[in-house]
Amino acid sequence: MKAVIIGAGNVATHFAKALQIAGVQVAQVWSNHYANAQVLAGEVGATAVQSLNAINNDTQLCIIAIKDDAISTIIPQLKGFNGIVVHTSGAVAINIFENQFANYGVFYPLQTFSKEKQVDFSTIPLCLEANNEATLKVLTDLATKLSGQVEVVNSEKRKILHLAAVFACNFTNHLYTLANELLTANDLDFQIIRPLINETASKVQHALPAAVQTGPAIRHDEETMKKHIALLQGQPELIEIYRTLSNSIKKTKL
Amino acid sequence: MKAVIIGAGNVATHFAKALQIAGVQVAQVWSNHYANAQVLAGEVGATAVQSLNAINNDTQLCIIAIKDDAISTIIPQLKGFNGIVVHTSGAVAINIFENQFANYGVFYPLQTFSKEKQVDFSTIPLCLEANNEATLKVLTDLATKLSGQVEVVNSEKRKILHLAAVFACNFTNHLYTLANELLTANDLDFQIIRPLINETASKVQHALPAAVQTGPAIRHDEETMKKHIALLQGQPELIEIYRTLSNSIKKTKL
Repeated sequence: MKAVIIGAGNVATHFAKALQIAGVQVAQVWSNHYANAQVLAGEVGATAVQSLNAINNDTQLCIIAIKDDAISTIIPQLKGFNGIVVHTSGAVAINIFENQFANYGVFYPLQTFSKEKQVDFSTIPLCLEANNEATLKVLTDLATKLSGQVEVVNSEKRKILHLAAVFACNFTNHLYTLANELLTANDLDFQIIRPLINETASKVQHALPAAVQTGPAIRHDEETMKKHIALLQGQPELIEIYRTLSNSIKKTKL
Repeated sequence: MKAVIIGAGNVATHFAKALQIAGVQVAQVWSNHYANAQVLAGEVGATAVQSLNAINNDTQLCIIAIKDDAISTIIPQLKGFNGIVVHTSGAVAINIFENQFANYGVFYPLQTFSKEKQVDFSTIPLCLEANNEATLKVLTDLATKLSGQVEVVNSEKRKILHLAAVFACNFTNHLYTLANELLTANDLDFQIIRPLINETASKVQHALPAAVQTGPAIRHDEETMKKHIALLQGQPELIEIYRTLSNSIKKTKL
């Protein structure tokens, strides 16, 4: 199997490398920054193309791994592509491809990617959707080569997944940031809290989070919460976050 | 060195086992539930005592690992103890021991403990405080046997640490819970989001969280945020959390 990659950012790069390991040849890479396409193409033995017209329309698979709002601008320029076209977005519905291609789908990796850090692709849940059974089979066969966790998820559910990921990843990371700001404002180093962050995530790998909730809010320890609010005096935004999340914890159904 | 443990809960249990591994003999265990004291004493080869009067006042160290608000009720009953007395609380100041003992301090492990899950004590930051240099030296020598990360932290800073831990651990775990509720309400399994949770914590082990923030809020992607709010229709509490945290992310200083 051969594939074309549209994009050269984090997701495109991680995908291209994983495909290569799985024995899929990345034939061409396009990016709106040609230099980035060249870098990625160089890493996976592909050809960087400057124009979308240069893409070989008979390649089996085209993976669009670019910003959500750029997908709709790329699609018309891929007109005539004969293989399967997929995007990798959690938030964009499959019907963005409707009437544009014969075979299409979604190949959504539920993970957070960064340039600096290698990720073991085999542990990343891959959420698939396709416009027909034959396409779904091709995507499933490929996905199972890349990852141990492959799920068929329709566009409605994928939107929920994406939203849940905002809570579990984006918001969580921001709480780490707020913790860091509290620490550094008091001459304490973020290093001291890293093991706690690790263990908090590790605990829910085999348990459900509601069952392992700790802290003053779940104990309804109003005295400690009052002291915490007092420590946050002069930081109304942090107080609001503290109150909002504590109130929500108090209502947790176990 | 010999030690007495007051308490038989999560923290007391993890401490007792770590002390044993470090070659400190746990001589006696007391708990307000005698049966629990017996279980823990049995695990570390100690004697469970039914009354605090039975504690050997010439033991070198007494570790009070019980609920914060119970510490002050225990202290008068330990009157006459000649060794060092420490508590393990993040939120209780050292001066709770003032005029009660000659040598005292705090031995605060910055970690979340659960009964079900073993923790590698050597990776737990131990935050120490003592009322004199000699006591601090004894505690530091012991702590470095137990953990690779030992810090001297005064009571004011320890309060901040405890508060930062609420953000980085308790609130974070609750966001996992909210993500789980979103998933299960839509027939999706929490398992699908576990790798993302792991990676989110893993990313900040070598980076600062503000530098690796992802998601719609940091990109000021108002379109996606609007769609997410729409998906949360009918759940005003989740909408409030979504808005509060997104607004805070938008203000992140990089």
